[in-house]
Amino acid sequence: MAAPLKELPPKPTVSDIIKSSKPAEWRQLDPANTLYMDLPAGRVIIELAPAFAPNHIANIRTMATEGYWDGLWIYRSQDNWVVQWGDPNEEKPKSLGTAKAKLEQEFTVPMKNDTQFTRMPDKDGYAPQVGHSNGFPAARDPKTGQTWLAHCYGMVGVARGNESDSGNGGTLYAVIGNSPRHLDRNITVVGRVVSGMPLLSVLPRGPAPMGMFEKEENWVPIKSVKLAADVPEAERSKFEVMRTDSASFKAVTEAQRNRGGPWTKYAAGHVDLCNVPIPVRETK
Amino acid sequence: MAAPLKELPPKPTVSDIIKSSKPAEWRQLDPANTLYMDLPAGRVIIELAPAFAPNHIANIRTMATEGYWDGLWIYRSQDNWVVQWGDPNEEKPKSLGTAKAKLEQEFTVPMKNDTQFTRMPDKDGYAPQVGHSNGFPAARDPKTGQTWLAHCYGMVGVARGNESDSGNGGTLYAVIGNSPRHLDRNITVVGRVVSGMPLLSVLPRGPAPMGMFEKEENWVPIKSVKLAADVPEAERSKFEVMRTDSASFKAVTEAQRNRGGPWTKYAAGHVDLCNVPIPVRETK
Repeated sequence: MAAPLKELPPKPTVSDIIKSSKPAEWRQLDPANTLYMDLPAGRVIIELAPAFAPNHIANIRTMATEGYWDGLWIYRSQDNWVVQWGDPNEEKPKSLGTAKAKLEQEFTVPMKNDTQFTRMPDKDGYAPQVGHSNGFPAARDPKTGQTWLAHCYGMVGVARGNESDSGNGGTLYAVIGNSPRHLDRNITVVGRVVSGMPLLSVLPRGPAPMGMFEKEENWVPIKSVKLAADVPEAERSKFEVMRTDSASFKAVTEAQRNRGGPWTKYAAGHVDLCNVPIPVRETK
Repeated sequence: MAAPLKELPPKPTVSDIIKSSKPAEWRQLDPANTLYMDLPAGRVIIELAPAFAPNHIANIRTMATEGYWDGLWIYRSQDNWVVQWGDPNEEKPKSLGTAKAKLEQEFTVPMKNDTQFTRMPDKDGYAPQVGHSNGFPAARDPKTGQTWLAHCYGMVGVARGNESDSGNGGTLYAVIGNSPRHLDRNITVVGRVVSGMPLLSVLPRGPAPMGMFEKEENWVPIKSVKLAADVPEAERSKFEVMRTDSASFKAVTEAQRNRGGPWTKYAAGHVDLCNVPIPVRETK
């Protein structure tokens, strides 16, 4: 016989909390830290996290402003792993313009660089402390004094070769599967897809090793990647993100940690960092 | 300045361990516990876990044998969540044949029903103990004496309404995003997709709430779902799964927990239950 189940009392859901949140608990995307990646199927919007990767993000801004990705490709889609874009032409790569070709890694940064961390009480196997920093899932280790962004679904990282300094931000990927937290502290993570994940996550998986598309005809063209600040204000996508240091976000986290009835029969009493939704909504 | 990084010594990868594993460390899929879901795009193979949901799996076998899903549909695809199939026609539902319409929940089962659990040393926020049971990620609580399958990527669960006994196995879903472990102990989990996940994970996301496809023209037709045991032996797909109580699987887990150089610079020292790959390979 199964264990007896008692009914849980109903409680506010994430959706209820979003509805009752106050306007001051949201912030608009900062145009200097927002990328628009326009694909034939629509727009992917990436929020950048300069507190965690200032040098790579400066480089990425340069590349966006100079049109580096315009006409380049998504050329990798690996199931339960990542979708990756940039320049697949290894023999005749596109010029990086005035952007730097190599940058020292920013896998972790000093905790003092990040002033907006809100810690979750939940334990985590990959880090001594986890929580959120200004809209991003983050982790930290007080012993080393370092903090870093966590590899959750939708997070965007800088692809690299074996050398720590072999990435520059020109080749980026987004996580499309179970959160590969073992990549934490091994990759410079630069931000998060805040809109348009389904344009990336549904791309057919590449047949070659690591999900690469072998045939150029299968590459997905990138029309352009623009910094929102370079787009006239009237043409910008308008999105806002719930402040992760707000009371409503704390309530969102609790709603996910201990869901109420009637559907839920067992409240987990725990929420994994990557299972906390970070609410984003379009505004007028 | 970033923290100094030392190089990690190389060590065997998951792929290396698979290559050097012994034949006895693998088992073939049991035809009585294997479903073939044939879609226009190809075959999805699901391994069932009868130790964890004997009554639902008996019902599912009946439905497969009687052709319940043949001509039905995938009608839900929600990003970072699930793809779901069954009969979307609520007003005139297809007959369940001799299968039962309602079954008591099997969200958890007594630990004594599962004799093949191998515990991982890694801590977990959702359960006192986690590990693997005969090819499936599982969790247990010695205090209650219960065990259950964990909601990792690719796991298959029985959709239900608000009542615990409102599922019967006719409507199933597969996890396509970050592992929603907060569903553990709330759902009867029946198995795992062992081949063909990309046929499910790349389906366009449904535009309606919960990822539903509103228009019938967007439903993805299911040609048939067959129990492998009902298919002539010569026509069966031949797959084998690494035994999760084998030395090689223990090594796979350790390879994921502490990856070696040169690419990896920081070994996590931990592996989340849902980040352990469970190797599957096609045989001749």
